[in-house]
Amino acid sequence: MGRWEPDAQGRLERAALELYAERGFDHTTVAEIAQRAGVTERTFFRHFTDKREVLFRGDELARSIADTLTTMPESLAPLAAVTAAFESTADFFDERRPYSKKRQAVIDANPALQERESIKLASIATLIGEALRGRGVPEPAASLTAEAGTAVFKVAFVRWLDDPAERSIAVHIRETVAQLRAVTAG
Amino acid sequence: MGRWEPDAQGRLERAALELYAERGFDHTTVAEIAQRAGVTERTFFRHFTDKREVLFRGDELARSIADTLTTMPESLAPLAAVTAAFESTADFFDERRPYSKKRQAVIDANPALQERESIKLASIATLIGEALRGRGVPEPAASLTAEAGTAVFKVAFVRWLDDPAERSIAVHIRETVAQLRAVTAG
Repeated sequence: MGRWEPDAQGRLERAALELYAERGFDHTTVAEIAQRAGVTERTFFRHFTDKREVLFRGDELARSIADTLTTMPESLAPLAAVTAAFESTADFFDERRPYSKKRQAVIDANPALQERESIKLASIATLIGEALRGRGVPEPAASLTAEAGTAVFKVAFVRWLDDPAERSIAVHIRETVAQLRAVTAG
Repeated sequence: MGRWEPDAQGRLERAALELYAERGFDHTTVAEIAQRAGVTERTFFRHFTDKREVLFRGDELARSIADTLTTMPESLAPLAAVTAAFESTADFFDERRPYSKKRQAVIDANPALQERESIKLASIATLIGEALRGRGVPEPAASLTAEAGTAVFKVAFVRWLDDPAERSIAVHIRETVAQLRAVTAG
């Protein structure tokens, strides 16, 4: 095993997911993940703090969505800007549909991972709320729009995973925000 | 200390909160909470699984809101029914405003408690989604309404805590749902 380890992070993610699917999250060790990925445990810990975080990529996604939101045209209404920021993740997710499905199956089987997912979504909403206030949106509209936009993403994500037609997550986000408008207009 | 311990749960909650405020959540032990409440540690563990759960009442609230939702008239639109179920907590919360403020200060000072709060809100949304499906609301409207209603509660709760006029949480819930309608109407 050389010093040069191309895409060690990606290999570790795929190895971890395979092992979680095969023997369960609780029965997989970091040593086993590193071995399957062909790297040392030390390399594992350069990329992830623990075996749970392999599934959550250090919350990069939350930061990326909030950063994208700051680049949206001022003329967009807050919810439209948030929705567009979530849609900007489409390339990332659509490419990773098989990985995302396996990942979701592991999370669905483990309450502690579901809790980690809830915390991640809450932190996305917090970052979006901050970005909206930075765009001059007052309270409580900023917090509400951030929470509502994150709820749209949460629901759209499940529908995207289950879509037999495999349409882009961007399509599901747009359909779901239309549904949100319908239930709130109710 | 006799066997008969009237309102041991309430005394433990108040004792815990005093200690968390005085010396910090991390520096308070179950033994100290029990001592301040005038009960044994054994009594503490009859009511709570650990010192964190003292602040979260075993998620009784989530169950109560979902149960109330099942009793709402069929004629109410889903979001109106969810909002009314949240408003039914007003007596509980309005009586406990000073306690709730102290509790929030402890939570705001501790990231692990904020995570527990996120998990609690996610579980409330899950229970509400189930109750809505039980009322015949289809997907994705059920999940979206549950998430949106829980977002309204989360935002209204903060505004209620900070309201110098100390209006009921029911008023804040109604104002916040009106704001949600405004941000989604865009």
